[in-house]
Amino acid sequence: MPSRKTREAPSQRATLKQAPKRAHYDKQTIHTVLDQAVIASVAVSIDNEPFVLPMAIARIDDAVYLHGSSTSRLMRHLAAGYALCLNVTHLDGIVVARSAMHCSANYRSLVVHGKGQVVEGEDKARLLHQITTRIIPGSEGDYRDHLPKELKATTLIKVPLDEAACKIRSGGPIDDKADLELPYWAGVIPVQQVYGEPLASQDLHESIELPDYARHYQRPGQEKA
Amino acid sequence: MPSRKTREAPSQRATLKQAPKRAHYDKQTIHTVLDQAVIASVAVSIDNEPFVLPMAIARIDDAVYLHGSSTSRLMRHLAAGYALCLNVTHLDGIVVARSAMHCSANYRSLVVHGKGQVVEGEDKARLLHQITTRIIPGSEGDYRDHLPKELKATTLIKVPLDEAACKIRSGGPIDDKADLELPYWAGVIPVQQVYGEPLASQDLHESIELPDYARHYQRPGQEKA
Repeated sequence: MPSRKTREAPSQRATLKQAPKRAHYDKQTIHTVLDQAVIASVAVSIDNEPFVLPMAIARIDDAVYLHGSSTSRLMRHLAAGYALCLNVTHLDGIVVARSAMHCSANYRSLVVHGKGQVVEGEDKARLLHQITTRIIPGSEGDYRDHLPKELKATTLIKVPLDEAACKIRSGGPIDDKADLELPYWAGVIPVQQVYGEPLASQDLHESIELPDYARHYQRPGQEKA
Repeated sequence: MPSRKTREAPSQRATLKQAPKRAHYDKQTIHTVLDQAVIASVAVSIDNEPFVLPMAIARIDDAVYLHGSSTSRLMRHLAAGYALCLNVTHLDGIVVARSAMHCSANYRSLVVHGKGQVVEGEDKARLLHQITTRIIPGSEGDYRDHLPKELKATTLIKVPLDEAACKIRSGGPIDDKADLELPYWAGVIPVQQVYGEPLASQDLHESIELPDYARHYQRPGQEKA
């Protein structure tokens, strides 16, 4: 968990209205929460109707990158520069209180508002290479980079982190004083995303050993359970 | 994993355009994917701008329920009956291919399009009770139900599952034939959400023992890791 360094909210729509004491607007927190995620929920609005889909993400410097098939409706919408909203949520615990009202969850939730910028040219190949190693840390040198036709079939979108806000809840249940004497259990059930024993592809040559990056897969800053 | 029983897509916007062979529109799959989730990403469109936030969910019969503070902007928007789009994604694996292009993820992703319906009256108290036991299975009788003032402070929204679609990817990497001889590892790193040893609240009376529902917390259909 990064230290709590709260700075000013970057914009009106990026300002947390509910429970503002749980807001974090500092880059360190925002980067850490993004880096631990493999996927984000990406929302767009088409003819004033909402759509949300999961997408693989990678943070590089102060931007988050989205990539996908150039033929997909969502990628074409993002490439056109329409507004997007992106959410990453790590569920950290189920908070069990003495009252239904105060049952809750521990989580780190990051919301980014912005617009996509299409990345082309030399940057595109370099960034797609980097994105692979962000999603599979340590895999450099163990995969073939994109061919020209694959680069063409892929749209790469940069979303600057200018408007990002993180909301974090941690700790135990906050019960009403009047409920503390109730004979009910209260506490937290921790939740964690864990990475298991890798399964080799059925068509893998026997001579190729399981690499360390797969055996010890973990997100940056996360310890193996 | 439920059996693959694909029926017709319920609507145009609920139809998967990319990789339609991964689409599942049957109720059994949709219910199972929802029931294993504690939170969903809920997207709305306000003045043609997208917003997405995580919310606790519970499925009861053929609807998913959202609840939150009556003062929250999102709850007021949902209560007004505007369109919403909801996504639940379970990340099941990191798919490592021989080429960056074919690296992928195994997942179960559910998208629901719909409109919220405000629940009031006797149903509200009954459903909020049921929602607590869906989020914390087995906890019946171990918490205090909502008081009248708490019911008033909470908005409960029903979203019928009339327009829902699930996209599922499973299995190993699908490499190009020309890449199969490359000396790179390929396979799947399994990903799972696990529930740890519960932590009792600091103000819990010593006489109250850890209940089984907390000790063995798990989502329906999920086995303890």
